[in-house]
Amino acid sequence: MSLFQALFTPRTIALVGASGDSSKATARPQKFLKKHGYTGGVFPVNPGRSVVFDLPCFKSVVDTKAKIEHAFIMVEDVEGALEDCGRAGVPVATIFSDGFADRGAAGAARQAKLAARAKKLGVRLVGPNSMGVINLPAGVTVSVNAVLEADAPAPGGASVVSQSGTMLGTLLTRGTARGLGFAKLVSVGNEIDIGVGELVEMLVADPDTKQVLLFLETVRDAERLAAAARAAHAAGKPVVAYKLGRSRLGERLARTHTGAIAGEDAALDAYFRDCGIARVDMLETLIEIAPLLSGQKPPRLGRAPRVSVLTNTGGGAAVVVDRLGEKGIEAVVPAGDAPIIDTTMGKALAAYGQTLNELLAWPGCDAVLAVTGSSAFSRPREAIAPIVAARRGGKPLAVFLTPQADEALALLAGAGIAAFRTPEACADALGAYFDWQRPRKVSRTSALEWPRGLPRRGRLDEMQGLALFKSLGMTVVEHALAKAPRYAHKLAYPVAVKIFDSGIDHKTEAGGVALGVEAGKFAAKARALGRRGKPVLVQAMQAGLGEAIVGYRDDPVAGPVAMVGAGGTLAELYNDVVLRLAPVSEAEALEMIGQVKGLAPLAGYRGMARGDLRALARAVAAISRLALVAGRPVREAEANPVIVKKKGAVAVDALVVLKE
Amino acid sequence: MSLFQALFTPRTIALVGASGDSSKATARPQKFLKKHGYTGGVFPVNPGRSVVFDLPCFKSVVDTKAKIEHAFIMVEDVEGALEDCGRAGVPVATIFSDGFADRGAAGAARQAKLAARAKKLGVRLVGPNSMGVINLPAGVTVSVNAVLEADAPAPGGASVVSQSGTMLGTLLTRGTARGLGFAKLVSVGNEIDIGVGELVEMLVADPDTKQVLLFLETVRDAERLAAAARAAHAAGKPVVAYKLGRSRLGERLARTHTGAIAGEDAALDAYFRDCGIARVDMLETLIEIAPLLSGQKPPRLGRAPRVSVLTNTGGGAAVVVDRLGEKGIEAVVPAGDAPIIDTTMGKALAAYGQTLNELLAWPGCDAVLAVTGSSAFSRPREAIAPIVAARRGGKPLAVFLTPQADEALALLAGAGIAAFRTPEACADALGAYFDWQRPRKVSRTSALEWPRGLPRRGRLDEMQGLALFKSLGMTVVEHALAKAPRYAHKLAYPVAVKIFDSGIDHKTEAGGVALGVEAGKFAAKARALGRRGKPVLVQAMQAGLGEAIVGYRDDPVAGPVAMVGAGGTLAELYNDVVLRLAPVSEAEALEMIGQVKGLAPLAGYRGMARGDLRALARAVAAISRLALVAGRPVREAEANPVIVKKKGAVAVDALVVLKE
Repeated sequence: MSLFQALFTPRTIALVGASGDSSKATARPQKFLKKHGYTGGVFPVNPGRSVVFDLPCFKSVVDTKAKIEHAFIMVEDVEGALEDCGRAGVPVATIFSDGFADRGAAGAARQAKLAARAKKLGVRLVGPNSMGVINLPAGVTVSVNAVLEADAPAPGGASVVSQSGTMLGTLLTRGTARGLGFAKLVSVGNEIDIGVGELVEMLVADPDTKQVLLFLETVRDAERLAAAARAAHAAGKPVVAYKLGRSRLGERLARTHTGAIAGEDAALDAYFRDCGIARVDMLETLIEIAPLLSGQKPPRLGRAPRVSVLTNTGGGAAVVVDRLGEKGIEAVVPAGDAPIIDTTMGKALAAYGQTLNELLAWPGCDAVLAVTGSSAFSRPREAIAPIVAARRGGKPLAVFLTPQADEALALLAGAGIAAFRTPEACADALGAYFDWQRPRKVSRTSALEWPRGLPRRGRLDEMQGLALFKSLGMTVVEHALAKAPRYAHKLAYPVAVKIFDSGIDHKTEAGGVALGVEAGKFAAKARALGRRGKPVLVQAMQAGLGEAIVGYRDDPVAGPVAMVGAGGTLAELYNDVVLRLAPVSEAEALEMIGQVKGLAPLAGYRGMARGDLRALARAVAAISRLALVAGRPVREAEANPVIVKKKGAVAVDALVVLKE
Repeated sequence: MSLFQALFTPRTIALVGASGDSSKATARPQKFLKKHGYTGGVFPVNPGRSVVFDLPCFKSVVDTKAKIEHAFIMVEDVEGALEDCGRAGVPVATIFSDGFADRGAAGAARQAKLAARAKKLGVRLVGPNSMGVINLPAGVTVSVNAVLEADAPAPGGASVVSQSGTMLGTLLTRGTARGLGFAKLVSVGNEIDIGVGELVEMLVADPDTKQVLLFLETVRDAERLAAAARAAHAAGKPVVAYKLGRSRLGERLARTHTGAIAGEDAALDAYFRDCGIARVDMLETLIEIAPLLSGQKPPRLGRAPRVSVLTNTGGGAAVVVDRLGEKGIEAVVPAGDAPIIDTTMGKALAAYGQTLNELLAWPGCDAVLAVTGSSAFSRPREAIAPIVAARRGGKPLAVFLTPQADEALALLAGAGIAAFRTPEACADALGAYFDWQRPRKVSRTSALEWPRGLPRRGRLDEMQGLALFKSLGMTVVEHALAKAPRYAHKLAYPVAVKIFDSGIDHKTEAGGVALGVEAGKFAAKARALGRRGKPVLVQAMQAGLGEAIVGYRDDPVAGPVAMVGAGGTLAELYNDVVLRLAPVSEAEALEMIGQVKGLAPLAGYRGMARGDLRALARAVAAISRLALVAGRPVREAEANPVIVKKKGAVAVDALVVLKE
């Protein structure tokens, strides 16, 4: 029997710690299995009882004498229950109990021990701290989530994997109310064993799953998830993520809440993009977007996206279109110069339907947005009839209904049409669709050697940093170490003189840099900066058209990423940086550069002199190759600034921090 | 009888163009008045019928022989209907018919004529192109909006004024579904006569209205609305606005849709802020925020806002808190270093209630957010009982329920507690509350004289522009006009030499500026830039710590605004500018400067050298005084850059465009 079957379609389920007291959460799974029509064998396990509700109860999983395919562990003595599962040959157990990595260092140690033991016993685990596994069409409700007290919705093609247990109930109830059903839902808890990546793998192979929706607080198995996302792309199954922790406060909260290491959100964002995972900004978009992406592949536009908007209410369309405009999406119509087609004035629904078909067939737009006003509330069937009847081809169709229109929304969901409750989620979904990229092949197979003579621990000094950058193929400034007492060097004046101390990150701000030093003043400057007889770094002066920051970081979650941003303090002040998984090619780096706002002047913005952005791209590609160095010793590297000239781009600074 | 009474509580209503054909929109008002229990006299007017449904029908308003207090005009011959209203002494007419300013130049001319005639006849007008006037508690449904086919919600304290007719139905149905009732709703249409400002005035005086909600596409009566907003503040009635047109696309659409002149969104944003109007970003926030602001005044913090968060689901709280973090709002708890209080682990509801009361009473936070998970779906009454029972003092309390929880939301609404359907609207509302300012007194009574000798039309040349700035109290660069053939001047070298041509906006980019010109090269440079014997502008060179842009604009909608932003191309690239209604004081200008990200380095960011921001503030205050010049001849003025030094700030450029 496969892991998939044991998880999602087990023929027998043991409920370890089942209670007969209806007020307790541990009494719920048995009730839910009955309510939702599970037809397999249910075995309550509780040494203190002989009967739980209408079923005989057993002292242990072994005691059931049944071939248990899925155990749900709700007791404090998780370790004891696991031993029983091992003895009984249970292939998979979902652990609701908490008190592991979610509970500090002691809990983390307990978790590690449990994981090792499970591996030895051959029992695969979901959780601990999992809200459970749900396969509603099969009546499998291995969960304590109270929302299962409601009737099951119609099954749908979306499957959910969530790092938050609560969100299972949130998405399930909100989807159900909208007529948006689900195939499978899993709360992964602490991901001691079966993680998000492996689940996505299984869901890609699941014929009932058409889209995979992820609610994430972090990523614990980046490589496996990336591979699964690639497989999903190949299978034509969109993967969409909502991720917490965009703000520092949110990140801190996610860490507190799950005990997980949080990667930098920007790095994870680059990761999702490069894995071909669409990212939504708003919670409800996660479920509402599923029909929009159904059957779609990431678009390949190479220009601003174009949406055609058809509405029977100008104001109602405007609330969506305004937000599309903020995302750089254009509104286009086949004829005339109005941005949208407004049929408000007395046109019949037939005309609405005909125009909608024309737009769906029109090659001038990349997606169609249909908006309907008050009639969606007062005459839902009639109002949405032309939308339901529309000849949908390959183009995404999004619908926004301005009034409260539960019936119309459910009808549209039933017809497989993407309809949005709020204008913001509608724009968010269209934006996520257009931002969605095909998985990028990030190959890290070729191995570079670490330059001889450079340390493999600690922090490189600036001489070593510049040497490392040069070895990667970056153009670095002509430089020399000048030693006391004479500070001799062979560079032409004027020069830059810098303090030589790897302990200082921001040399300029610490007063450790003198620029444009002429021969006559050099000795005095060198003595002033070379404190206590230390050497100074001397560099040729560089004049350019602008500055950029070029960087690399081995993110603890997302892995190696390359970065480019506007120079000076702009990158930081405006958060104006673009990241991609490393390594990147020169062409990819050029694309990144095109997305940095502060580098627009170097691309000839408003007639300004053009800088050599290809040379800058080569510098980005060069630093990104740190991802290929055997053993990946570098945690973080940064050339700030890289001086971009009319011809060439020169790194004049090097900051390199190693992992150990 | 007052206008308020005629509008909202008329004893008699004429329906001009009433139809007996149920399929027609013009048949609806009569049905709605009956359905919603209107007890006054209803008089259908239609020359082609003697009876409409169960009421006698009249040939004209005059023909009714009744003292009609409110006429609803739905016919094409609006002019004829207006004449009848005039003859019959009808005090107010609401015009549903369109074909006026919404229909090009000819429509605008028709509208102007109608307005003049109505004034002469003494008939006040709502519309044209109005969806109507609704006072549900009184059964007054002077509207064709199909959503009135539903039962009326319980009355509430929020009144709505909308420039979009559709949005009346949108807000009404969405509010009703949530148990959020309304006092009055008005669709103002083209605002030919009674506009948003006058309506806010009336609603401030209405005892049933506790909050005023505005759905805006533009502002047509800025001064009156500002005065009404001040009155609302004095009366303790919050005014909240959702405004379309943030993006250029949205602005264009609003213009197409209403024929209104669109002001710059940033200028209107400054206007709302200075008027004491809170602005929300998301559509549903507009209705959901009402209970949050009920009884509140704008907070006066002078530091980052602090919210205490209580939840029984970590993930559920995180989706809101993450967004609060993005808005710079802090999460604080009385003890411990976790950012929130999470009672997930087995604590009883009583503990939740007790903690909630403690937080509401705790002086360490400015607002409280209570989050509840799945139980809000499965046991709504029980789950929200501790929230409903909480001892609310002066502090705002916001509630987010993670599952679909219609019953719980309605119960909370009934208890007057602000509850949000989405985490995004919840964060939006808290953000709007904390951004909400008291109305700022913008006095434009004192009049400045236009400097003698300066033209009052066209565009000032740079000499004139600098003279104007100097007359306002700005420090401008030492400069002189040097004339061919000798280009004599008395400035010390090196100097800046600039082409003297008011037709060129971006002189630097057009190659019209030479910097740091030494005496020996001056004559040649001057000849090169002073094309065909024209003079050149010579300026003393200025070295500073940074650059800023300082501006003024007489926005066609918001009126005069002052602006300050980061210098160079930053203001434009990053849209990094801050606006306020002009004039501003030096202290207010300093506050504006503090909000410009790109000026942070001048404030000592990361140990950088501090610039004289007080001097920059004086420059902003100076240019803002253009709002006081008699006749306000200036449309737009800009000093870009102003060089900020260690001591002082000097404008080295002047661009001034006059209105005529």
